[in-house]
Amino acid sequence: MNKSIILYIIGWILMLEAAFLLLPLATALIYQETAGFAFLITIAICLAAGLILIRRKPKHKIFYLKESYITVSLSWIVLSIAGALPFLFSGAISNPIDALFETVSGFTTTGASILSDVEIMPNCILMWRSFTHWIGGMGVLVFLLILLPMTGGSRMNLMKAESPGPSVSRLVPKVKSSARILYGIYIVLTVLEFIFLLLGRMPLFDALNTAFATAGTGGFGIKGDSIAGYSSYIQVVITVFMILFGVNFNAYFLILQKKWRQAFSSSEVLCYLGIIGIAIAVITFNIRSLYSGLGESLRHAAFQVGSIITTTGFATADFNQWPGLSCTILVILMFIGACAGSTGGGIKVSRFIILFKSIRKELNQHLHPRAVSKIAVDGKLVEHEVIRATNVFLITYLMIFTLSILLVSLDNHDLITNFTAVAATLNNIGPGLSLVGPTENFAFFSGGVKLVLIFDMLAGRLEIFPVLLLFMRQTWKKF
Amino acid sequence: MNKSIILYIIGWILMLEAAFLLLPLATALIYQETAGFAFLITIAICLAAGLILIRRKPKHKIFYLKESYITVSLSWIVLSIAGALPFLFSGAISNPIDALFETVSGFTTTGASILSDVEIMPNCILMWRSFTHWIGGMGVLVFLLILLPMTGGSRMNLMKAESPGPSVSRLVPKVKSSARILYGIYIVLTVLEFIFLLLGRMPLFDALNTAFATAGTGGFGIKGDSIAGYSSYIQVVITVFMILFGVNFNAYFLILQKKWRQAFSSSEVLCYLGIIGIAIAVITFNIRSLYSGLGESLRHAAFQVGSIITTTGFATADFNQWPGLSCTILVILMFIGACAGSTGGGIKVSRFIILFKSIRKELNQHLHPRAVSKIAVDGKLVEHEVIRATNVFLITYLMIFTLSILLVSLDNHDLITNFTAVAATLNNIGPGLSLVGPTENFAFFSGGVKLVLIFDMLAGRLEIFPVLLLFMRQTWKKF
Repeated sequence: MNKSIILYIIGWILMLEAAFLLLPLATALIYQETAGFAFLITIAICLAAGLILIRRKPKHKIFYLKESYITVSLSWIVLSIAGALPFLFSGAISNPIDALFETVSGFTTTGASILSDVEIMPNCILMWRSFTHWIGGMGVLVFLLILLPMTGGSRMNLMKAESPGPSVSRLVPKVKSSARILYGIYIVLTVLEFIFLLLGRMPLFDALNTAFATAGTGGFGIKGDSIAGYSSYIQVVITVFMILFGVNFNAYFLILQKKWRQAFSSSEVLCYLGIIGIAIAVITFNIRSLYSGLGESLRHAAFQVGSIITTTGFATADFNQWPGLSCTILVILMFIGACAGSTGGGIKVSRFIILFKSIRKELNQHLHPRAVSKIAVDGKLVEHEVIRATNVFLITYLMIFTLSILLVSLDNHDLITNFTAVAATLNNIGPGLSLVGPTENFAFFSGGVKLVLIFDMLAGRLEIFPVLLLFMRQTWKKF
Repeated sequence: MNKSIILYIIGWILMLEAAFLLLPLATALIYQETAGFAFLITIAICLAAGLILIRRKPKHKIFYLKESYITVSLSWIVLSIAGALPFLFSGAISNPIDALFETVSGFTTTGASILSDVEIMPNCILMWRSFTHWIGGMGVLVFLLILLPMTGGSRMNLMKAESPGPSVSRLVPKVKSSARILYGIYIVLTVLEFIFLLLGRMPLFDALNTAFATAGTGGFGIKGDSIAGYSSYIQVVITVFMILFGVNFNAYFLILQKKWRQAFSSSEVLCYLGIIGIAIAVITFNIRSLYSGLGESLRHAAFQVGSIITTTGFATADFNQWPGLSCTILVILMFIGACAGSTGGGIKVSRFIILFKSIRKELNQHLHPRAVSKIAVDGKLVEHEVIRATNVFLITYLMIFTLSILLVSLDNHDLITNFTAVAATLNNIGPGLSLVGPTENFAFFSGGVKLVLIFDMLAGRLEIFPVLLLFMRQTWKKF
């Protein structure tokens, strides 16, 4: 294993984090908050550690998929530990596990919080929480790829390891340019949402935080009631942007290239929008008696569906109180998740498309045992490797899911709490149902269970295998 | 498609059912119950329809996997419809959907009932319910294989389609002999349990019913409180036999051949017993405060664990009231299920072994991308086909599971009810949690939801694909 390059990259990650921390520091200066010192100290620590690590240049810069998996996992862990320091130093969160939980929840764009009252928090702390969503949404290593000199193959491996979805398609032949384009689209969409929110007379600070949390499909709110207190216009804007950030970014790139037909005929995007449409329609009808009019129930249905399927986790209504059918649909959406190549989590729509096609293929095989059939999506043949990886992903996902529920249930809460707490963290959503419903928080869990959920959030964001490799003895044998 | 052989076999199934119906008829004669007429009429109908169908001998008797799948599905449907008639004719159940639900629940060895009070039912009706478990447990087509003259390949295909598990291993080269041996073991074990129950002073009628329901891992009780009212000795006997009927019958065959080492080194059986042991230990500890002593909580824990993992569904305690950890473990056991090649349902332990090994293989592949690794169980290489089929099975299972929950939730009950009602029927268990807990029944669901659950029970028993093929347009194209 190329140990030196891993440490070198982690060094750069820390340098980058120091830079990111300037935003909450600036917020503290503007609002004259003493919590700013916490950020100052953390920046100093990150810089010091980072400089030590990047001083030793790696001998060779090529690295393989295995190393990139390890690099990505370790980077995210280091990023989270360093990111948790401001919470501890400022006294905003006193328990180290809680601080780590909050930070991992931020970077993995989960949005599950252990804070019982966010409104008493200093603005700089709130800004850091929201900003971690934005950083984690597109991926910090993808960002680093733009900055660091590296060979194309190594870049591709790193990008593969951090990007969600069954297969990474390069937008353009050069990985560096792809990363740049992705970040470009990401920034433009974030700015657009920010402007639309300002147009709705949302305060500047609120608009910036909300835009960050929506863009990363995170879900940390800066109000106790999440988005419920804002105007209908603002709720609609957030609904639309949540859904937009859940679309495969390839589609936007195709639009930029004016390949309209290709952009709008992607079966993943069409499926994603179709599921959203149907879910909104059914839930609107199901909850109509709870609200004053069809318009209001449509708005709440659309917001919650958009929030859950994109794994954002904002709320305008306490869906914990909705009827069984609506709750069931939301729980199913938790697992479906957004498109691959978006900032959203979950199992991803494209994986379901591949899985459905495998089932149809299997059934056909039973009818015509000698026929050779292949699976194609959008006219392109899906490689056998991708199908196998998708199958194994789902199976591993289920095993981790089951094991997590088992461990979480050691705290002896009700089944719905256990089930949805794991679903909400492994799919990077945030709120679940029952004790972890949208009006509740995760503070009541024991330290051990919080560690399990931290693992789930990381496993969910990095799509399991990079994190799982850390736990294999063989990984460390030749280190 | 060889239509004539399908109809011919269905004819024989009806003849066989007429023979099976003699047992409840005899019961009615002994207890002088008027409900006996219902069985008499049903026997007449089965004989008439059966004789018409078997009169036209099929031109050629060879049939392929596709036809055997269709035959098995249709046979089970016909078997269930005919089997529901005595319930209707006797007035024991007045609603046709309810009668079908009860019969399918019987034949598929689910044990979910729509009866709110079983103790007011005539003995012949109770006997028929228990006997359907016994018939369905080993499979009615496997039985037919012993009787009908047929080529070996066709027999194998039929047996494959009806037997549970990822792969069917023939005990001996001739399929007919294999079926005979399996039924032999089945009958001997049933008789053994019957004797042990009688030794515990269980009334003859109760012992016969209980032995039938245990052997098929069914779970229909003849008392309102299932097994709770019987002595500790009887509860222990049932616990042991439930677990025995969940063991792969291959192991018994190996024991008969005195291949002790092979019998006791099967990784599936060891895993199965290991899971049972751990689950009992944890639950005993978790529920210790609810009962008067460790012995009592051990007895209840062992009974419920044995009942759920083998998908029998008997109960000695209302586990709905147990703490979260115990409930969670039981729900997980619902999905694991028994061994392949047993009478139990669920996903099956051997499938999990294969799935776990695929994950380990995938992780190794990440570490050593060029290494060629294969999956082996008990020293035998698992064919690629079996692994693929196992993957696709799990995925299809999940899709049906999700879709069923969605449809069941249209009745607007709570999530736990929806989730465990589907889990309990698709895995052929019987009771779930909440509204379908061990002290409740399935009567309150709407007709539509009951049809969904009937589908789930059949899909679970026949391992999905045979039933799913019935819904494909292509299946019927060349009929």
